[in-house]
Amino acid sequence: MKTPIQFFFDFSSPYGYFAAMSIDELAKRYDRQVDWHPILLGVIFKTTESKSLVDFPLKGPYSRHDMVRTARLHQIDFKIPTVFPISTHQAARAMLWLQQQCGSAVAKQFAKKIYQAFFVDNINISESDAVLKIVTQCGLDSQEVASGMAQPDIKDQLKADNDAAIAKGIFGAPVIIADGEPFWGFDRFYQIEAMLKNGEI
Amino acid sequence: MKTPIQFFFDFSSPYGYFAAMSIDELAKRYDRQVDWHPILLGVIFKTTESKSLVDFPLKGPYSRHDMVRTARLHQIDFKIPTVFPISTHQAARAMLWLQQQCGSAVAKQFAKKIYQAFFVDNINISESDAVLKIVTQCGLDSQEVASGMAQPDIKDQLKADNDAAIAKGIFGAPVIIADGEPFWGFDRFYQIEAMLKNGEI
Repeated sequence: MKTPIQFFFDFSSPYGYFAAMSIDELAKRYDRQVDWHPILLGVIFKTTESKSLVDFPLKGPYSRHDMVRTARLHQIDFKIPTVFPISTHQAARAMLWLQQQCGSAVAKQFAKKIYQAFFVDNINISESDAVLKIVTQCGLDSQEVASGMAQPDIKDQLKADNDAAIAKGIFGAPVIIADGEPFWGFDRFYQIEAMLKNGEI
Repeated sequence: MKTPIQFFFDFSSPYGYFAAMSIDELAKRYDRQVDWHPILLGVIFKTTESKSLVDFPLKGPYSRHDMVRTARLHQIDFKIPTVFPISTHQAARAMLWLQQQCGSAVAKQFAKKIYQAFFVDNINISESDAVLKIVTQCGLDSQEVASGMAQPDIKDQLKADNDAAIAKGIFGAPVIIADGEPFWGFDRFYQIEAMLKNGEI
């Protein structure tokens, strides 16, 4: 059994969304599984002395243009949400709880629906009500998830996962780690593919 | 005659070097010329509230790894220089003077040699002596270039070019503008190619 690929993402990242839409398919072509790890860029940026792309002068407007153009080129349905970027700890906590209680397949389905709600349907998924609506759309019990995602051990796990990501050198998202090799950004997918294909890079 | 592609680069940028090694070839496949514009990222970063990739915590070590890996994957000869990043105004001034006095072909040949001196031969091209040595290697008169690159109008032009780049929204390097469409980074070459091929993006 080959080592699973590690996929670190923030629900507020457009390039994380693009990656989420294709990472499992890419991995499958090379007989790999993918472990999904929601992280919080807002927290990580405090350590890395950075901020969201769109908050830098000049880089901000360009990045918005690049996101739309990249989505169009890759035929991914995408609109920049009205409220953007946002805090995503509610969605991340729900995801962690679903991974533990319902397994990775259910959690991934939820994650993709969260991304689509935010980047296609312009729903502000920073609020727990919006997150729980998507839980219901996934055929899950929203009361159970509401209670689960509020548990202190889930909050602690998200914090620990974030600290572990920083300790691994993760400073942005999406980051994909394959066989110990880190790749930052949707635009490195061609390099990930080259590595999975050739066994080295 | 199709509109020339505009190529903005800093001699201290590895991704600018990768771009410089292939931009003319890419453009030629689609019947385009390339106008080369040396800019100074150090100056631009003051406006864009940014700094060199390698100066950000965590992003720094990753970027160094990514530069080496990307060069290897694209089969470009590359080593991270001992002194890096550096100030490149001497090389940029020499380039501007060569463009005016000797034409773009000579200036591009010089630019590629500067890049190779820095990123292959580990020569600190921030110093004018190193720049002039490369001028000589290009078969040009180093005394004439030394005097030319020190002229006030060349200094003023570099400043004006930098200001114009910022006014165009340029916040990093390399930036390629094709038919008004800006692309930042060597990793956007596949998008530039898609646009040149299809006439739109």
